[in-house]
Amino acid sequence: MCAQYCISFADVEKAHNNIQDFIHLTPVLTSSILNQVTGRNLFFKCELFQKTGSFKIRGVLNAIRGLMPATSEQKPKAVVTHSSGNHGQALAYTAKLEGIPAYIVVPQTAPNCKKLAIQAYGASIVYSEQSDESRENVTRRIMEETEGIMIHPNQEPAVIAGQGTIAMEVLNQVPLVDALVVPVGGGGMVAGIAITVKALRPSVKVYAAEPLNADDCYQSKLKGELTPNPYPPETIADGVKSSIGSNTWPIIRDLVDDVFTVTEDEIKYATQLVWERMKLLIEPTAGVGVAAVLSQHFQTVSPEVKNVCIVLSGGNVDLTSITWVKQAERPAPYQSVCV
Amino acid sequence: MCAQYCISFADVEKAHNNIQDFIHLTPVLTSSILNQVTGRNLFFKCELFQKTGSFKIRGVLNAIRGLMPATSEQKPKAVVTHSSGNHGQALAYTAKLEGIPAYIVVPQTAPNCKKLAIQAYGASIVYSEQSDESRENVTRRIMEETEGIMIHPNQEPAVIAGQGTIAMEVLNQVPLVDALVVPVGGGGMVAGIAITVKALRPSVKVYAAEPLNADDCYQSKLKGELTPNPYPPETIADGVKSSIGSNTWPIIRDLVDDVFTVTEDEIKYATQLVWERMKLLIEPTAGVGVAAVLSQHFQTVSPEVKNVCIVLSGGNVDLTSITWVKQAERPAPYQSVCV
Repeated sequence: MCAQYCISFADVEKAHNNIQDFIHLTPVLTSSILNQVTGRNLFFKCELFQKTGSFKIRGVLNAIRGLMPATSEQKPKAVVTHSSGNHGQALAYTAKLEGIPAYIVVPQTAPNCKKLAIQAYGASIVYSEQSDESRENVTRRIMEETEGIMIHPNQEPAVIAGQGTIAMEVLNQVPLVDALVVPVGGGGMVAGIAITVKALRPSVKVYAAEPLNADDCYQSKLKGELTPNPYPPETIADGVKSSIGSNTWPIIRDLVDDVFTVTEDEIKYATQLVWERMKLLIEPTAGVGVAAVLSQHFQTVSPEVKNVCIVLSGGNVDLTSITWVKQAERPAPYQSVCV
Repeated sequence: MCAQYCISFADVEKAHNNIQDFIHLTPVLTSSILNQVTGRNLFFKCELFQKTGSFKIRGVLNAIRGLMPATSEQKPKAVVTHSSGNHGQALAYTAKLEGIPAYIVVPQTAPNCKKLAIQAYGASIVYSEQSDESRENVTRRIMEETEGIMIHPNQEPAVIAGQGTIAMEVLNQVPLVDALVVPVGGGGMVAGIAITVKALRPSVKVYAAEPLNADDCYQSKLKGELTPNPYPPETIADGVKSSIGSNTWPIIRDLVDDVFTVTEDEIKYATQLVWERMKLLIEPTAGVGVAAVLSQHFQTVSPEVKNVCIVLSGGNVDLTSITWVKQAERPAPYQSVCV
């Protein structure tokens, strides 16, 4: 497997050793009401409780620690990114932990709460114009000026290996697990998890969950070739707007068992259900996995896939922007189920 | 102690045996950011994850199981309440569990989400007019018609004993705990906890936390006599609008070490802080305890009170009514702390 893909399971094991003392072993929670609704035993891997509020710290920490040999003179001079989301926050936090300056390029129009979060982690904000071109130009300039490096949020092999550590934990925490359900954007998490699961317990299924409005993973599997989203997708699940890439695609192609797409209404309903019933403040991106398991398509999955673990990827919700909460309308086929 | 108060620790132990197989042993979570903010080690007892979304199930279950002798012929014919909040939901759930009809009297103007929650637990809704008089008349009528019994939400001794089981768990889960912080409304929870803590570990402090707008517990302790709120209080912490009563007052008078009052802004800030930083969807009533520990007054508590456990009493938030969320303004003295 090592030769075929950008990482092997040995890389995930190394990542586990690299990062385990610096991250939370996040708990796995259950909900009798959601078991009743789905007719399966659901397990929720709570990466929303992870440091910086999402799983992203795993990959970033593994990448930065992998870059740093024994002597601190070899440290990168700086790290740079233009993600102000979970990857950016994880990078800012890790850089502070390792004593490296971090620069986050954000458009001047970015929400104030994101700027505050970046500053709270001690990173520097650098402003760009709104356009992709300006963002990339500014990022390149900052990298040159600071001799900084950029860590790709989902195609960097060390990041993919870091995210795979989630599966090592789940296989221990839920020994009888039959399937893992993982939201997919750039595919770093699902690829790392697939490498791990298929190395340690090949009979366990790995399912990707994706917004219908950003269904490049589904389309790629359907066509058998990497098929990025043709235009920037519109979805409330802002953590999975990226397309899968050249490093994650071969792993997803070969090792992910199925892809479940869900509508925006299904994502909102699932997110709100977890808020109301589990009291867990997940972000809508984490709701994508829950929505997949609640979907009509998932009912076609064999009843032998009984113990299903959903990765709740993060909990960084901008509370001031929640305008979509409403008396939840239950999508079919759950109209008749009393939740 | 048995003769002095309406319950003794033996009643709490009995309650523990009565209910432990039917409730969750809720987890205790921590937050490094909130430790940093307060300069203490905080432990959060997550009763928001309890069945029905609040601690209320403990007392109700103990009361109903205490009423039921070995033969089911002796079951109460029905249970009745006019609480549509956490007590009402706990009563409805427990009644269903025990196979007893439950009737909840609510004003016709009650929010739809509360009516739906009651119906979801299988209880019957009976409508009254808005006035206290109508509510009480309807409740009395239903009790007569159904030969139903009413279980007082906070002055019933079996309820107080049931709530005390929280402290039995906390003393096991946080062996080095120095203080428990408990929101107080009618005082059932803080009284049960005080009886338990002072029996098992008398050096551990029990602090009550209360909205300034509903500060009957504070006033009672100040004056040395039971002093109910003079008028129905206005507070976002809707679970603690009740005044303490004749059963809980002697326990609170003698065994609660101090009372901390907090403003509405402090409650909102603390609630939102827990949402944003801990990803736990607590209700504002649970935020009262957090606000107390964040308050200026709490800074006067000895630094030797290092390990502080806050009971997060519940998580039943009506998401559609959250209009108060805002870019949190940090109350003094935390303006300078980076959270």
